[in-house]
Amino acid sequence: MPFGYMGRILRVDLTKKKVWIEKQDEEFYRKYVGGRGLALYYLLKLISDPRIGAYDPGNVLAFATSVVTGAPFPGNSRFTVAAKSPLTGGYGESEAGGFWAPELKRAGFDAIVIEGTSPRPVFLWVHDGQCEIRDAQKLWRKTTGETEDIIRKELGNSKIRAACIGQAGENLVRYASIHNGIKHVNGRTGMGAVMGSKKLKAVAVKGTQKISLYNEDKVREKARWFTQKFKDNPVNSILFETGTSGGLLGLNDLGVLPTRNFQEGVFEGAQKICGQKMKETIGVGKEGCFACPVGCKKKVEIRTGPFSVDHKYGGPEYETIAAFGSNCGIDDLEAVAKANELCNKYGLDTISTGNVIAFAMESYQKGFIDTNDTGGIELTFGNAPGMVRLVEDIAMRRNLGNLLAEGVKRASERIGKGSEEFAVHVKGEEAAMHEPRGKLGVGLGYAVGPKGADHIEMEHDECFASKDSEFLTDVEPLGMSDALDPTDIGLKKVRMFIYLQQLWGIYMILDICIFVAAPGRTFKLGDILELVKAVTGWETSLFELMKASERALSMARIFNVKAGITPRHDSLPARFFTPLKKGNYQGKSVPRKEFQDAVKSYYRMMGWDDEGVPTIEKLAELDIDWIRELL
Amino acid sequence: MPFGYMGRILRVDLTKKKVWIEKQDEEFYRKYVGGRGLALYYLLKLISDPRIGAYDPGNVLAFATSVVTGAPFPGNSRFTVAAKSPLTGGYGESEAGGFWAPELKRAGFDAIVIEGTSPRPVFLWVHDGQCEIRDAQKLWRKTTGETEDIIRKELGNSKIRAACIGQAGENLVRYASIHNGIKHVNGRTGMGAVMGSKKLKAVAVKGTQKISLYNEDKVREKARWFTQKFKDNPVNSILFETGTSGGLLGLNDLGVLPTRNFQEGVFEGAQKICGQKMKETIGVGKEGCFACPVGCKKKVEIRTGPFSVDHKYGGPEYETIAAFGSNCGIDDLEAVAKANELCNKYGLDTISTGNVIAFAMESYQKGFIDTNDTGGIELTFGNAPGMVRLVEDIAMRRNLGNLLAEGVKRASERIGKGSEEFAVHVKGEEAAMHEPRGKLGVGLGYAVGPKGADHIEMEHDECFASKDSEFLTDVEPLGMSDALDPTDIGLKKVRMFIYLQQLWGIYMILDICIFVAAPGRTFKLGDILELVKAVTGWETSLFELMKASERALSMARIFNVKAGITPRHDSLPARFFTPLKKGNYQGKSVPRKEFQDAVKSYYRMMGWDDEGVPTIEKLAELDIDWIRELL
Repeated sequence: MPFGYMGRILRVDLTKKKVWIEKQDEEFYRKYVGGRGLALYYLLKLISDPRIGAYDPGNVLAFATSVVTGAPFPGNSRFTVAAKSPLTGGYGESEAGGFWAPELKRAGFDAIVIEGTSPRPVFLWVHDGQCEIRDAQKLWRKTTGETEDIIRKELGNSKIRAACIGQAGENLVRYASIHNGIKHVNGRTGMGAVMGSKKLKAVAVKGTQKISLYNEDKVREKARWFTQKFKDNPVNSILFETGTSGGLLGLNDLGVLPTRNFQEGVFEGAQKICGQKMKETIGVGKEGCFACPVGCKKKVEIRTGPFSVDHKYGGPEYETIAAFGSNCGIDDLEAVAKANELCNKYGLDTISTGNVIAFAMESYQKGFIDTNDTGGIELTFGNAPGMVRLVEDIAMRRNLGNLLAEGVKRASERIGKGSEEFAVHVKGEEAAMHEPRGKLGVGLGYAVGPKGADHIEMEHDECFASKDSEFLTDVEPLGMSDALDPTDIGLKKVRMFIYLQQLWGIYMILDICIFVAAPGRTFKLGDILELVKAVTGWETSLFELMKASERALSMARIFNVKAGITPRHDSLPARFFTPLKKGNYQGKSVPRKEFQDAVKSYYRMMGWDDEGVPTIEKLAELDIDWIRELL
Repeated sequence: MPFGYMGRILRVDLTKKKVWIEKQDEEFYRKYVGGRGLALYYLLKLISDPRIGAYDPGNVLAFATSVVTGAPFPGNSRFTVAAKSPLTGGYGESEAGGFWAPELKRAGFDAIVIEGTSPRPVFLWVHDGQCEIRDAQKLWRKTTGETEDIIRKELGNSKIRAACIGQAGENLVRYASIHNGIKHVNGRTGMGAVMGSKKLKAVAVKGTQKISLYNEDKVREKARWFTQKFKDNPVNSILFETGTSGGLLGLNDLGVLPTRNFQEGVFEGAQKICGQKMKETIGVGKEGCFACPVGCKKKVEIRTGPFSVDHKYGGPEYETIAAFGSNCGIDDLEAVAKANELCNKYGLDTISTGNVIAFAMESYQKGFIDTNDTGGIELTFGNAPGMVRLVEDIAMRRNLGNLLAEGVKRASERIGKGSEEFAVHVKGEEAAMHEPRGKLGVGLGYAVGPKGADHIEMEHDECFASKDSEFLTDVEPLGMSDALDPTDIGLKKVRMFIYLQQLWGIYMILDICIFVAAPGRTFKLGDILELVKAVTGWETSLFELMKASERALSMARIFNVKAGITPRHDSLPARFFTPLKKGNYQGKSVPRKEFQDAVKSYYRMMGWDDEGVPTIEKLAELDIDWIRELL
C-alpha cells in the first residue's frame, strides 16, 4: 500500500453504463501529483478532439484529489473538478473544500474520471472500492441540499458526502456550480453544467479505508502546531474572525473594489456590506472544512423579510459580496445574503452570476435592454430585489435569465454591438472581483491563466508592494525579494507573476487551501514540503513541486491550444483598457501596449513559442513529451 | 555582521597599484552566492570588451569563495578562480580545495578581484582586512612550493596560505595552473597564465577573523554525522581508500578509459596504473582539505631511479593518471607520478598537459612531426621518459614544448592540416579524461559547457544507466527517476543533462566539493540545503539554488557570446565523430546529426535563442536584466 495516495482511479462511462478501476503507480503520482495535474492527464488522454462542445458526450469530467488529500492537516480538504468548460471552450477547473475529498479517498479512490452521457438522470454511489450508477429521476429538479438529503436517506447513511448540482446545472446554465454540503462549491468555469449535460446529478461517496501516512506523528505534530499558531497570523486571523469578506474594506480603501460592473474602484456602501458588518448583524456562527481550525466559512441567518435566509446555506464570501453588492451597486447585505442562498441552493457560481447581473444592469442603464427584456424588472444599479429575482430567473432560465444563463460573453453578443465594451470576461469566463487596473499582475493572470479571468493565479500585487511585506518574506525560498508597484507590468512583474503562478499551482496540484498555505498564511513553503514528505515519504523539494506545477500549467495550455484558444484570447476585456473611476487609481487604465508585451514575455518566460504553444523542448524538460503526439 | 559571508570584496588594480574594499549586501550574496556566480558578476561588470586578449591588462582575475566557504563542514574548502581564458578566449574558471579559501575568509574577504597588470613581479599579501601589493622579484623563476615557503619566511608566519604560479604560469603556458599547498590546484582553463600575464606570482592570505554561523551547532552536528557515515558510502569509501584513481579500472572495464589520444577505450596496462596498484606500490599516505575526513588526496614517494618523486608534491589523481598513462599509452606508474610532480612544481594543468603530449605522440606516429621537432625524443605512444621530458619542456617552453605550451588547438594549427582530426579539444580546452562516445551526456557537457571540454558539468552517464542506481535515487528531489542509456542523446538526455548541470552548478556557486556533496556521495541534496541554512540563516530551497546556478550558467554564456563564441564552437572535436577502437563501445562514434540536434535542444531548454544567446525574458526570469545592457 502506498503512502498518501490510494493508487486507484475510478473510471466511469455513462453512455456505456460501465464502471472500472484503473491503477496508477508511484511514477504517475510523482509526476502529476493530483488535482489539476491528475485531471489534465486524463483530459488530454481521453478527449481526442478538444474542439467538441462542452456538452458533447466526449467531454470528460474529472474529480481529482491529490497525494496528500485527506491526511489530517488543515487546508487539506480540497478536490478539483475539471472538464472542457462551457464558458471558455477551453480548460475548465474549480476546487472546493468541505468533507467530500477525504471521503473519496476513504472510499478507496484518488479520482473519478467520467466519460459519456447518460440518457436519464443518474448519480454515482462510490463506496469502499466500488461504484454504482444509480437512477436519479427522483433527484431531478431538486436543490443541492435536497439532493444530498435524499441520497443519504435512500442509501441509509447520514454520513454520505455528495457533490451535486442544483437546477442551474440541470438547466445548463453555463456557470453552474457543484456543491458538497451545500456551501462547499466548485464554482467557476461551469463544471456543474457539464454534470448537467451528462445527466449526472450527484457523486456520493463514503468509505472506511484508512489513508496510510509515511510519518503520522509528523503530520499530527504540524497540524497541532498550526492550530496553536494560526490566530497569530494576520491573514488567518481575519479569516477566523470575519471570513474572506474581512478584507473588503481594505480593497475599498485601496480603490480596487469592483463597483457597478467595474466602472468604479470605490463603493460608497462598502461599510454596509463588509465582513465586520456581516458578523455584527446577520452572522450566526461559522463552519469549516475537514481538519481545519480556521473555519473561514461564516453562517448567516435572516429570519424575516423579503430576503430571509436559512443558515444552512452558509454566508456570502468576499467574492459573493462584491459580485452582488458593490459590483451591482447594492449596499443591502441581506439581499446579498439572499442571492448567495439562491446560488447555493440552485447551484450557481456567485462570481459569474453577480458579474452577469452587473452587466445586465449596465446594459439597462445604457439602453441596450429595457423592462420588456427583463420581465418587468427596473434593472438599475442598486436594485436589490431586482438582483435577487434575476438570480432565480437565471437558475430557472426564465425571461432575461435565460439569456444571462449563457454568460456575459454570449449575452453581450446577443444584446448587441457596443455591449462588449462592458462585458467583463476573459475567454468567456466572467472576471472575479479583483480590479486589474490597480493590480496588473492579477490582470496578467486574467489574461493568460488557463481558465479565464480567475483570481487565484497568484497572490495579489498589493501584497508585494512593500519591501517589508510578510508576503514577500514568505516567498524568500523562491529567491524573490523585490517589492513591485501594483501597477508595474514590466519584466520583473512578469517574473513575479510566473513564480507565483507556479507556486499557487502547487496548491492546485496538491489540492491544498491557499488560505492556510499560500504566502502570508500560517503554513510556510517549508511546512508544505515537510507535510508532503510526511504523508508520502517522498524526498521532494520546492524545485520538484514547482516543476510539477509548471507541468500542469503547460498541460492546461496544450489543452487550450487544441481547443482553439490563440494569443488573441490572452487579453483583457475593453473595460480594463478604459480609465477607472474614483479612488486611488482613478483615471488609470491598463496600458495596452505594455500589457500585450507582458503577455508575449510571459509566453517566452514559460518556454512557449510566440503563439503561446509550449515548445517541444519545454515539454521534454517537463518530462511530458508524450504530449507532442497530441500537437 | 552577516552570517557566512564577510560582505567585503577586495579590489586590486595592479596597473595603478591600488587596493580598495567594496562592500556588498545580502541581496548580492543571495543572488550570486559565490564562486562562479560572484566571479562572473565582476567579469561581466569590469571587462568592457570580452574580445580583448586574455593577457590584456583589461582581463579581470577573480578569486571567489561563497557564502558557506570556511564553515567547518566537509567539502567546504574550495574557491574559484575565473578570468577570460587564454585557451578558449571565453569564460575561464577552475576550482581548488586545500586551506586557502577558508583562510581568505578569515582574512576578512569573500573574494579578490584583480584588474590591470604589474610591470614587475608582485604578490598580494592579504591579512585581516588589509592587502599589500609586494615585490615578488625574488620569487620569480621559483617553483610553486618554493614560492609559498619564501613568502612564509619573508612574512614570518608559517601558517600563511599562498595560491601561486610556477614557471609555467610565468612563461604563459596557456594551461598553466594555480597551486596552494603545492597540490591543491586550480588546474583548468589557464588561470595560472593569466596570473603570469599580470606578473602576479602569488596571493598570500592569513587571518584571524571568525566566520559567523547562524546555527553553529547544526553545522557541527552535520559535520560529525558525515565523519561517522562517509565510509559506508561506496563513492566516498573508494576516495578514502584509493583516491580518485580508484575508479580507473571500472572505466577501463566499461570501455571508456581514454587511451592513446582517445583512439581506444580500453588500456591493456590499466592494472599497472590504477589507484589500487598505486596504494600498494608507491603510496605513502594521504592528505585532505580543510574540515574534511575523506582525505582523497594520496601521497606517493619514489626514492630512487629516473622518476624519483618527493611526497610533498602529492600523488596523481585519476585525471592525471589517465592523461599521462593510458592516453599516452604509458603503463609506468612511476613515470606518471613524476609527470604529476613536475606539473605541481611548475604549475601545469595535468589534464591539458597529458592531452597535449598524447596529441604530440599521435602527430609523431602519423608523421606530422619528427625528432627534429621534438628535440630528439622518439615520441612514440608509451615512451615514458619522453613524456616526462616533454612536461618539463612545456613548462620551460623548450623545443617542441614551446609549441605545445600553446595548447592542442593552436599547436594543431601550426603542425598542419589534418592534425585537427586528432586534436582533442573544445573551444581550445583540451578534453578531460572521459570518453564521450560511451557517455554522450558528458559529450554534451564538453560541447556546451561554459569552459570547453570539462568533465564536471554533470555526474557521468553511466551513473544513471540503471533504475536502481543510488545516483538516480539521490536526484529524487529534482523529479528525476528515468534511467537512460549512456549512449542516448535524445531529449530525455538533454533534460537530464540540464538538471544535472544546474545541480553541479550549485556546487560551483557554493564552492563545495562534488566528492562529498554530488549525487552518490555522503551528503544528500537535503543536507546541503540544511547546511546553507545553518550557515547563513537563509530560508533557501532547491528551487532558489537551482535558479542561482542557472543564473551563473547564463551569465557565463553571455560572457562567451560577448567574447565571440558562437554555436559553431558548441561541438565536439573530429575524433569523437569517428569510431572508438576496442572495448564495449568499439565502433561507436558520436552520432553527428543527433548530437547537433541535442545542442539546439539544449539552447531552447535553457531559454536561449537559436544562436545560443539567453533571451531577454530568460535574463529577466533569472533577475539579471541589467545584463541586457551588455548585449
